[in-house]
Amino acid sequence: MKKVVALGEVLLRLSTKEYLRFSQVHDFNADYGGSELNVISTLTNFGMESAFVTRLPENDIGDCALAQIHRHNISTEYIARGGDRLGIYFLEKGASLRSSKVVYDRAYSSFCSFEKGMVDWGEIFKDAGWFHWSGITAGVSQSAADLCMEAIEKANEMGLTISTDFNYRANLWKYGKSPSEVMEKMVSMCDVVLAGDYASKQYFDIEPSGSTEQARQISLCQELIKRFPKVKKVAVTNRGNINALHNTWSAVLYSGKQLYISKPYDITYIVDRIGAGDSFMGALIYGLCHFDDQKALDFAVAASCLKHTIYGDTNLVSKEEVFGLMEGNNSGHVKR
Amino acid sequence: MKKVVALGEVLLRLSTKEYLRFSQVHDFNADYGGSELNVISTLTNFGMESAFVTRLPENDIGDCALAQIHRHNISTEYIARGGDRLGIYFLEKGASLRSSKVVYDRAYSSFCSFEKGMVDWGEIFKDAGWFHWSGITAGVSQSAADLCMEAIEKANEMGLTISTDFNYRANLWKYGKSPSEVMEKMVSMCDVVLAGDYASKQYFDIEPSGSTEQARQISLCQELIKRFPKVKKVAVTNRGNINALHNTWSAVLYSGKQLYISKPYDITYIVDRIGAGDSFMGALIYGLCHFDDQKALDFAVAASCLKHTIYGDTNLVSKEEVFGLMEGNNSGHVKR
Amino acid sequence: MKKVVALGEVLLRLSTKEYLRFSQVHDFNADYGGSELNVISTLTNFGMESAFVTRLPENDIGDCALAQIHRHNISTEYIARGGDRLGIYFLEKGASLRSSKVVYDRAYSSFCSFEKGMVDWGEIFKDAGWFHWSGITAGVSQSAADLCMEAIEKANEMGLTISTDFNYRANLWKYGKSPSEVMEKMVSMCDVVLAGDYASKQYFDIEPSGSTEQARQISLCQELIKRFPKVKKVAVTNRGNINALHNTWSAVLYSGKQLYISKPYDITYIVDRIGAGDSFMGALIYGLCHFDDQKALDFAVAASCLKHTIYGDTNLVSKEEVFGLMEGNNSGHVKR
Amino acid sequence: MKKVVALGEVLLRLSTKEYLRFSQVHDFNADYGGSELNVISTLTNFGMESAFVTRLPENDIGDCALAQIHRHNISTEYIARGGDRLGIYFLEKGASLRSSKVVYDRAYSSFCSFEKGMVDWGEIFKDAGWFHWSGITAGVSQSAADLCMEAIEKANEMGLTISTDFNYRANLWKYGKSPSEVMEKMVSMCDVVLAGDYASKQYFDIEPSGSTEQARQISLCQELIKRFPKVKKVAVTNRGNINALHNTWSAVLYSGKQLYISKPYDITYIVDRIGAGDSFMGALIYGLCHFDDQKALDFAVAASCLKHTIYGDTNLVSKEEVFGLMEGNNSGHVKR
Amino acid sequence: MKKVVALGEVLLRLSTKEYLRFSQVHDFNADYGGSELNVISTLTNFGMESAFVTRLPENDIGDCALAQIHRHNISTEYIARGGDRLGIYFLEKGASLRSSKVVYDRAYSSFCSFEKGMVDWGEIFKDAGWFHWSGITAGVSQSAADLCMEAIEKANEMGLTISTDFNYRANLWKYGKSPSEVMEKMVSMCDVVLAGDYASKQYFDIEPSGSTEQARQISLCQELIKRFPKVKKVAVTNRGNINALHNTWSAVLYSGKQLYISKPYDITYIVDRIGAGDSFMGALIYGLCHFDDQKALDFAVAASCLKHTIYGDTNLVSKEEVFGLMEGNNSGHVKR
Amino acid sequence: MKKVVALGEVLLRLSTKEYLRFSQVHDFNADYGGSELNVISTLTNFGMESAFVTRLPENDIGDCALAQIHRHNISTEYIARGGDRLGIYFLEKGASLRSSKVVYDRAYSSFCSFEKGMVDWGEIFKDAGWFHWSGITAGVSQSAADLCMEAIEKANEMGLTISTDFNYRANLWKYGKSPSEVMEKMVSMCDVVLAGDYASKQYFDIEPSGSTEQARQISLCQELIKRFPKVKKVAVTNRGNINALHNTWSAVLYSGKQLYISKPYDITYIVDRIGAGDSFMGALIYGLCHFDDQKALDFAVAASCLKHTIYGDTNLVSKEEVFGLMEGNNSGHVKR
Repeated sequence: MKKVVALGEVLLRLSTKEYLRFSQVHDFNADYGGSELNVISTLTNFGMESAFVTRLPENDIGDCALAQIHRHNISTEYIARGGDRLGIYFLEKGASLRSSKVVYDRAYSSFCSFEKGMVDWGEIFKDAGWFHWSGITAGVSQSAADLCMEAIEKANEMGLTISTDFNYRANLWKYGKSPSEVMEKMVSMCDVVLAGDYASKQYFDIEPSGSTEQARQISLCQELIKRFPKVKKVAVTNRGNINALHNTWSAVLYSGKQLYISKPYDITYIVDRIGAGDSFMGALIYGLCHFDDQKALDFAVAASCLKHTIYGDTNLVSKEEVFGLMEGNNSGHVKR
Repeated sequence: MKKVVALGEVLLRLSTKEYLRFSQVHDFNADYGGSELNVISTLTNFGMESAFVTRLPENDIGDCALAQIHRHNISTEYIARGGDRLGIYFLEKGASLRSSKVVYDRAYSSFCSFEKGMVDWGEIFKDAGWFHWSGITAGVSQSAADLCMEAIEKANEMGLTISTDFNYRANLWKYGKSPSEVMEKMVSMCDVVLAGDYASKQYFDIEPSGSTEQARQISLCQELIKRFPKVKKVAVTNRGNINALHNTWSAVLYSGKQLYISKPYDITYIVDRIGAGDSFMGALIYGLCHFDDQKALDFAVAASCLKHTIYGDTNLVSKEEVFGLMEGNNSGHVKR
Repeated sequence: MKKVVALGEVLLRLSTKEYLRFSQVHDFNADYGGSELNVISTLTNFGMESAFVTRLPENDIGDCALAQIHRHNISTEYIARGGDRLGIYFLEKGASLRSSKVVYDRAYSSFCSFEKGMVDWGEIFKDAGWFHWSGITAGVSQSAADLCMEAIEKANEMGLTISTDFNYRANLWKYGKSPSEVMEKMVSMCDVVLAGDYASKQYFDIEPSGSTEQARQISLCQELIKRFPKVKKVAVTNRGNINALHNTWSAVLYSGKQLYISKPYDITYIVDRIGAGDSFMGALIYGLCHFDDQKALDFAVAASCLKHTIYGDTNLVSKEEVFGLMEGNNSGHVKR
Repeated sequence: MKKVVALGEVLLRLSTKEYLRFSQVHDFNADYGGSELNVISTLTNFGMESAFVTRLPENDIGDCALAQIHRHNISTEYIARGGDRLGIYFLEKGASLRSSKVVYDRAYSSFCSFEKGMVDWGEIFKDAGWFHWSGITAGVSQSAADLCMEAIEKANEMGLTISTDFNYRANLWKYGKSPSEVMEKMVSMCDVVLAGDYASKQYFDIEPSGSTEQARQISLCQELIKRFPKVKKVAVTNRGNINALHNTWSAVLYSGKQLYISKPYDITYIVDRIGAGDSFMGALIYGLCHFDDQKALDFAVAASCLKHTIYGDTNLVSKEEVFGLMEGNNSGHVKR
Repeated sequence: MKKVVALGEVLLRLSTKEYLRFSQVHDFNADYGGSELNVISTLTNFGMESAFVTRLPENDIGDCALAQIHRHNISTEYIARGGDRLGIYFLEKGASLRSSKVVYDRAYSSFCSFEKGMVDWGEIFKDAGWFHWSGITAGVSQSAADLCMEAIEKANEMGLTISTDFNYRANLWKYGKSPSEVMEKMVSMCDVVLAGDYASKQYFDIEPSGSTEQARQISLCQELIKRFPKVKKVAVTNRGNINALHNTWSAVLYSGKQLYISKPYDITYIVDRIGAGDSFMGALIYGLCHFDDQKALDFAVAASCLKHTIYGDTNLVSKEEVFGLMEGNNSGHVKR
Repeated sequence: MKKVVALGEVLLRLSTKEYLRFSQVHDFNADYGGSELNVISTLTNFGMESAFVTRLPENDIGDCALAQIHRHNISTEYIARGGDRLGIYFLEKGASLRSSKVVYDRAYSSFCSFEKGMVDWGEIFKDAGWFHWSGITAGVSQSAADLCMEAIEKANEMGLTISTDFNYRANLWKYGKSPSEVMEKMVSMCDVVLAGDYASKQYFDIEPSGSTEQARQISLCQELIKRFPKVKKVAVTNRGNINALHNTWSAVLYSGKQLYISKPYDITYIVDRIGAGDSFMGALIYGLCHFDDQKALDFAVAASCLKHTIYGDTNLVSKEEVFGLMEGNNSGHVKR
């Protein structure tokens, strides 16, 4: 199996402890994550070779992010150093009827000033079979979007499978281009897409139609495959927001010919849902590389379901634990 | 909008961490709160001008309480210093089928020896439009009850709206008077009352009749308005105690003519329910000053519902968050 | 009431904090427990005289275990010192769809090398009326099993009631004997048995039959009483594993003539389920010594239900709290 | 060796963490201690049989204090329950040029209302050889002083050795009697006295004379022995207050005939000096029961020197560690 | 006494716990401070009326900073909201031979884009007698320097005393102007200056001469007073860096005619030296407003000496504690 | 520069927090270290390529150790999995006159049963220039000693430089061979030796002579070089144990011809001295590979001096920080 490469930003995540509000805390938990890094750590964790491309500032905070990437045994040889600062996001975990809240402080980051020409994509893609990026990278700055386009073109040229997660963030896209201007070309060169209603509307003015949730999902998948002929698979996750600690979770995968539907999960006490979509994306890539489409989807849904029970951005579960959940919930038992 | 003034005791709250029992802990969280202070902090938080009257010992623990009141941006200019000690309550948070537990150590406090003549009510009420007190103040000591009566009379004389929360505490009322002796006159001078079944029975031997919960609530409201002609509004909250971390929550408001009913909330993972009634009272005062009766009630119920998700005595939510919940905003979303 | 004696191993429990995985922690909570010690601490807590027999290493970690036993006011005069080490188990608490996980590091412990002849059972049993042991002691080593047999024989000779908890642990029984070889004789001398489906199959190749859960439980009880004529009561607990934090809990007690059935409890937010079975066993012994069979069962189920709300191995609840739950007292109330 | 009995108050100690000031903390460490309890825990720790007499409230906080006493393996059978509350002291640890600070909240405690007739001293002293009390007990309330006098008289009658620690606290003695009125008679019946300059001045208007520290100490001892003919030994500790974390420490013991002088210690990084005097007193009692006067003094000084390195009120050191320090063992080594 | 006004930036301080290095931590303490805010909090703490002018982002992190300013009872009415972010600095506390380390992440802050015209200085200075600023404000951005110049000119026009702390930070001054270009005019309008060797060299190319430390200090003061005729007092602090936790501390004050010299302090276990210079500046302003020059200097040195024993940016000491230290070190005593 | 390989055991280190004693803690810090791993992490940290050979159990605790090794960016490809358990040591940090204390629980570890034939030394040493081992590996078990001998012989055959740290531990060497039997041959094949008085006496009955410390050190070095002709350099560190938190530190290096002497350091507030010797060994290897002998020694002493200021087994300092200390840079400054 050839290695998977991803390009993305790493953020310092400063989260409040327990269920305290921002105004109540005197310390923050400090972790490191980012959508594409979370995808790569999932793949490494499941045993695939992978590499992560990013840019970190040359200071102690950049070193900390690097050490954390080492810890997950991810190759750091293509990580550039330079620029002003590591982007930060502050996270306040909600409870019951109070939502979780994110405050971004990611402008002017080292990744924002990451530029075309700074990365030797030919070298990086030499042994690679897959390249992954997300809409966040396209949205942070012109230079990051350009660098990502450069990577997509090179990956395409070298025959890699290309995947993207739409990942629309309203607070990004402030560099003077509209999302649709930027994303159209980038998505058109992809093979696998993790889409979403709202993002599809923002990026491509696509609105799914249909009277049931499932009809709407099929419609969205079909619209996307129609719009982007190179795209072979579209996945859509479906979260039911009962309250801040209680969600339902499922997904569909559309291959252009067939719609695969996962079983739904009820997650009644969520430990941390940040990174759940990323863990789905990572497990889907893993699944598509190792299983048939239905099993790939089921694996991705079960893996990301377990992510909700794990603190931090990274999905620290084993394949065996994912298979266990796929075979039926036995979570009430103590494993001795 | 004229300012709201409240009189009440501040207690040091020493609570066990996580779900540990008293006998398991080696440290206590230390916070400061009290029924009437919680009402005032709610009002200040929503942007109303307010002032709080209490008495704190002249030692470091009194200073800590004062700094915490500053933190909430509440005016401290009418806070007296003196007396022996700050009252304390120890709190053990329950879980599932185990109840929360409170141990009081509030006797002999600085507030207990707060006396008539120590406060210049004329000065304090100069720019005020509303005075709030609760049954706790009446129950701690003769001198506190006398001081409270003095305030009520002056407030009445100066034309302020007067509200009270019945707040019956069985472990108080130890100074030789029965609650009914004391409360009758004090409540008779109020305009707005937050009542409760058990308290009404203890204070006034009033027992609501009716075969449904709602019929009983109307009956209670009617009895109270009959008994106390000056009272214009009676509110009653209704808590369903499913278990220590799972409650239902709603309320009614009776204007003498009409009964307003709130929608019920299901609170499945309670972070902290201490102060929920106070946050209702504060939000009701805010609502009655800004909205019509139905909206005032709905605002108060939604605000106090959110209180259950917030650690400590103080309801640290914004008006926008309350409006969001009233509009059915789904707490399952992460606010980015 | 004569005192209860138990023989068993004490382990250092190193557990991850909050819902962190093993790979995420930088510190472990350190507690001390063990099946039979948990039974004894339950009895001491409810006010029965009791004594615990074990062997601890002569080092600081052994001293810590001893101090913890003192803290629960359990007599430590029959605790031997010596051997290599205190056994350890690492515990990772699960959440929602992720199971809890235990990693044992208990081989080569001081208790494993505890031997026949090291304990003066005659002296210990002088004022005792009851002896308790469990299948764990039989499974750790040949010498521990021999010592336990010695205790059982002496207890029998001196007329004590003998109880056992089957407590089958797959990771034990590595000393060259099969469980059935060892357990047959030991159980045959018991009066009260806490059994389980899986353990009964492993130990005695007994499989309950019947199409309902209850039919199967009666069948298991009957098979055991047929096999072991001295056994007078068989109890079986019944856990419904909805997820890692949500279980149902009930039990049956069979007296040879009659099957007693408890009401079922729904435990929606489990704090710690380790030791729940032990707390049932302890409360059952207490109940059988003080109440009739139905009340003994109800007491044991309610007590062990509350155990799920308490951190650690030890069931720190009062009899009053157990009675309260039996009477349906609503845990949603704050006890002030 | 006959057992040692002490009478004294137990306080809940609420201390700030690390070097934070009162106004900076959001939690307090919670420990339990008190001068005479600290003496008894030292003796129990060194292996002497002992019993402690006090009165604790019948609530969860009283239970916590009791469990902590159990933990140190001290007999709790003579501990009475009742009264209003457990006394509290708040402790802020100083650093460098900032002093440590204590805020007392001990008025109205269960011990303050402990009274003559509540304790069966004849029963308690049956197997006892030594009774210890301190000036704190005499200073908290009239009834505690009366109870203590009752104990002293009974101990005298039954031939026990009686020791006292002057322990003058300026914030006590508020019940209408001057210290000198109360202490004269109580000290006159003692055999062993731990005195201090300031206390001797307050209690007996004794001022040591002499131009050197040592001359002053001899003078103080001589004055006391002259004033109290029954007193056989007077000890005085000598603390050099370089700063909040750096003290020197030594002591003298006067037998009426000879002055014994300890070597001085330099304690450069104090972990916790609360209870150092108590640990000296306890170790002195132990020493006088087991060694000659010089060794008793040296043992007491070394033991209390080590107390400065241990968090909390209780001196958790072994005799071997004390002997090690007496022999000059170098604390810089890691003991493996 | 008229109020003191200061202009300055507030930073979020994220510091490692205990003595851990950046790469070892999983959480950061979160505090809020800044040179000029620290000056103002010192003055407020000592009881002077004061106001602080700054600009905070309109997000939760800005709200947290505001709440912290409230807590210190500082008027927040002149605090503007807007801009991108709150500046951050990361702090790693050193120990022994390892230095403390600061990583700045303060570029692009809300304060950097604070501009002339945004503040109504005439209104703010109405009741004010003193204005304070520091070289940090001049160094962060052109617009902040312009705003500060605007304030200085208005303060001058309205007859306020103006003080400055040179506070040279090498990592600032990146907006295209040299420090000397900017500072010359700003300092020329000041009355009181807290100078330093290195800053004086960077700002004004002044190098003190003389063979002793004291001669050099006099020389520096004289040079500054010669260069800036409006300056009436120059203070210089003198830190001896023995190691990261052991410093010496003293200062001189030159009035143009006379050099006042403080006694030197030896600070052997530093809790936190960040903000020590600010606490000196604040206490010096207080001293110059209340005492003669020698006492003002002594007060400022003692106050800032105590700052080294207090965690965080803010000097939480009382005047009484400062006077206590001025009268002689009694820090070894426990204040009861 | 060719890579450095080391063979050694990894232990789970469970340490008490702050200055608490074992009997006071309710949680342990959990870290991973071991003498030879500490040497390798020092080398990796300074930028040398290196590989570590050990054996870890196949369970979660083994995985945690592995992740921690990843974090330090050390190659883990030669780490074997298997065996029973990870060895543990419990650490209680001393303070002032109380020593630190270690309790070992390392018997029966996966490394103890690591055997000859399990490692492909030829493969591992292919690109290596240096092999390091220590006396601990020789002392844990016969099979580990045999495996180490196998490595030494292969390293010798392939021309690697071989270094050893004597590292005598009295609690090891329990497998039936005396240290001298085992160590003689192993040391005889080494090139660089870190020796110590006590170890040299235990291993080889060598006792240094001479009246000064330096004379004794020369004597020890000469004796060792005489006894082991292949040894080219002998280093000896010299620790002055003033108290548990205050040590002096220096070292000598003898090349057979010349004795190099380092400057002595005074370390007045030790954060953690565990691993100081290992950090010296690692830095000495680094120094001997990059500098002349005097500079190598100075570098090693300064690096290990800084280790005392860093929590945990691993010396997390940069070369620049070591050079800074060598140049006398004053740690009292805050690096901004």
